[in-house]
Amino acid sequence: MGKTIAEKIFDAHRVAEPFPDTHVLKLDRVFCHEITTPIAITDLMARGMDRVFDPTKIKAVIDHVTPAKDSKTAEQGKILRDWARRHGIKDFFDIGKNGVCHAIFPEKGFVRPGYTVIMGDSHTCTHGAFGAFAAGIGTTDLEVGILKGVCAFHFPKTIKFILNGKLKPGVYAKDVILFIIKELTVNGATNMVIEFTGPVVDEMSMESRMTLCNMAIEAGGTSGICYPDKTTVEYLWDFIKDEFASKEAALEEYSKWTSDPDAEYEKVYEYDLSDLEPMVTFGYKPDQVKSVKEMEGTKVDQIYIGSCTNGRIEDLRIAAEVLKGKTISEDVRAIVSPATPAIYSQALKEGIIEIFQDAGFCVTNPTCGACLGMSNGVLAEGEVCASTTNRNFNGRMGKGGMVHLMSPATAAATAIEGKIINADLYQA
Amino acid sequence: MGKTIAEKIFDAHRVAEPFPDTHVLKLDRVFCHEITTPIAITDLMARGMDRVFDPTKIKAVIDHVTPAKDSKTAEQGKILRDWARRHGIKDFFDIGKNGVCHAIFPEKGFVRPGYTVIMGDSHTCTHGAFGAFAAGIGTTDLEVGILKGVCAFHFPKTIKFILNGKLKPGVYAKDVILFIIKELTVNGATNMVIEFTGPVVDEMSMESRMTLCNMAIEAGGTSGICYPDKTTVEYLWDFIKDEFASKEAALEEYSKWTSDPDAEYEKVYEYDLSDLEPMVTFGYKPDQVKSVKEMEGTKVDQIYIGSCTNGRIEDLRIAAEVLKGKTISEDVRAIVSPATPAIYSQALKEGIIEIFQDAGFCVTNPTCGACLGMSNGVLAEGEVCASTTNRNFNGRMGKGGMVHLMSPATAAATAIEGKIINADLYQA
Repeated sequence: MGKTIAEKIFDAHRVAEPFPDTHVLKLDRVFCHEITTPIAITDLMARGMDRVFDPTKIKAVIDHVTPAKDSKTAEQGKILRDWARRHGIKDFFDIGKNGVCHAIFPEKGFVRPGYTVIMGDSHTCTHGAFGAFAAGIGTTDLEVGILKGVCAFHFPKTIKFILNGKLKPGVYAKDVILFIIKELTVNGATNMVIEFTGPVVDEMSMESRMTLCNMAIEAGGTSGICYPDKTTVEYLWDFIKDEFASKEAALEEYSKWTSDPDAEYEKVYEYDLSDLEPMVTFGYKPDQVKSVKEMEGTKVDQIYIGSCTNGRIEDLRIAAEVLKGKTISEDVRAIVSPATPAIYSQALKEGIIEIFQDAGFCVTNPTCGACLGMSNGVLAEGEVCASTTNRNFNGRMGKGGMVHLMSPATAAATAIEGKIINADLYQA
Repeated sequence: MGKTIAEKIFDAHRVAEPFPDTHVLKLDRVFCHEITTPIAITDLMARGMDRVFDPTKIKAVIDHVTPAKDSKTAEQGKILRDWARRHGIKDFFDIGKNGVCHAIFPEKGFVRPGYTVIMGDSHTCTHGAFGAFAAGIGTTDLEVGILKGVCAFHFPKTIKFILNGKLKPGVYAKDVILFIIKELTVNGATNMVIEFTGPVVDEMSMESRMTLCNMAIEAGGTSGICYPDKTTVEYLWDFIKDEFASKEAALEEYSKWTSDPDAEYEKVYEYDLSDLEPMVTFGYKPDQVKSVKEMEGTKVDQIYIGSCTNGRIEDLRIAAEVLKGKTISEDVRAIVSPATPAIYSQALKEGIIEIFQDAGFCVTNPTCGACLGMSNGVLAEGEVCASTTNRNFNGRMGKGGMVHLMSPATAAATAIEGKIINADLYQA
């Protein structure tokens, strides 16, 4: 019987199966940020085990609260910084060079098809966009990963999505994943891998695929995953060109990280998305999704564009196209956080930062920012935010605040109107 | 006998003298920010006195922690925002339109020669650069100011500085004021006005005069003050051109806000500053000042360029000139916070944001930021910051942190070297 891509990655990385259905995998990457890793570092130090398995496979960044907002976050940054220096972890991205983990690590070419990736962050599933098995884990697993370069997982069952048709103009990966989470519900993929396939995914850029995989966790999924293809090779080429004679050779090699036609799935969903409309959440769970049209007129206080879901250059371009020459409503405030310094610099060059600035947006430094309600745009009691982020949990962006998740296009149009509106009004 | 400029402003604004040496002045401006004003608003509401004396004379901004970092600061912003809307305070600068109070209010033309200005902020003395009497006050005075448009002061004694000579290239207003504070000590001007006069001041831009007046409070001064002149008229012209037939007419009118030659001073200091060197603080008090040369080699962890002292376009230009084509030391992190959206936009146009970005700086949105240790660059225990801000108090930028105050040029050079160094190395 054939195998899924996740099964193939497990087979290639399994170093032990100490108990039934406990697969210990060799790790290609251990990613770290300043909120969860310092707990692991401090614990390892207390146990006399201040070691790392391989400093070249560990990548670290300060991204959740940056620059530090108080003594606690300053100390968290310092613990991570000192640890990186102590162990010769060269890929440590300090304030000024730092950006959202799930944006900067792919951008630096750290993720490849077939890799195993862990991080103490729930949206680690993002990296599945490259055909990797990438999972968020807790402190104990992180400590083992740092020390030994391995992590234990259950064997992954897979849900497959076949996404047919062609998205209408103005409909994006964010709308697709909101639709999928609505279909799956927030528990629908618990402990499973979600495979995204079909013509809609084939057409997507790497940025869009990352948006898609990023929110797999919101349906409970361990990892989202896309098959590597030409688009993947193009994105990675600068990093892999010394390893392969040609792009074709790279594609051939990476093609082994594809599910077999006769692989067994827990469930297969097939949709034609040609008529999909822009989507938005309405409640405190990411599966509470309606079309933007159904939610039109909902007043908001703040607009936030950014995060590991939608803070990439493609997202900023889409929002800027809507905002160009316009200003935001007097009734709202708006914030944009480019996800990385490279994205910020590219947006500068393209005049996108200026468009946001002229429209009345607050342009922050690269940061996870308001998404997690710990800095750069926390809501007050009773406030409503139109946001391109990934979680609308009660209080996520501030106690008593309400979050409506949407695409950058919808968020930009909502900023202009001061209430939720379909962006097609502002799109050519 | 002649009068000082401060005495003349008192005479022109006095509405009562209920007790000996208690002068109740009519206020031209009440400035507000989101840290101190919400306390006053909440108290006024509790007392059933939710009124304002004149919404056109009240100007408000969210600047100290922006965008909000937690529920508390979100609520502070909301209280200020709701109050501004409720009372028709049109000049309220919300997130995205907001900047450091002492930079954005002058930039908007809100301060004029001869004005009385109060704000619940210690660096309100900045606005004395326009020949105004501008003083930081507490919550009770702020409440009275908001309600009645008046404030009580003791009659101001004045210390006069006559600054002769010509500053060497690479020596700036920040170096001058650090030198003056060293001479005065931190208590030397308590309850007094500091007049800055002489050829050195005459040569200064309005930005530099604001830097000078900004730190009057660090010597205890109630207000710094400069005489209005051609430079003042030039700066204000766009805002006053409908009031005067010509710049000459404006200058003539404003010239009345100058001290008489036979005015009486508490003390007069006269210096030739032609040999003044770049200065830097070394301890936890702003009067602990040495020349940069004496402090060269002192290692730092962070560089911060910004604040109401040195976050204006002139400051960013000076720092960018030093940084152009260079990158900051691997051993440090660096943050720049343009003081207002207009400064940010101007810096964008001039390529200055790009220079900071390429050098490895974290470019934040306009904010008071790290200066007050409440956001955007708080220090961890034991860390050292080279900063263009105004206070080096123990723990100011984070518990256990050390701050060295300096000019933007020195800060930029220090970022490149990773230790304190004279910028002349990098200046043409």
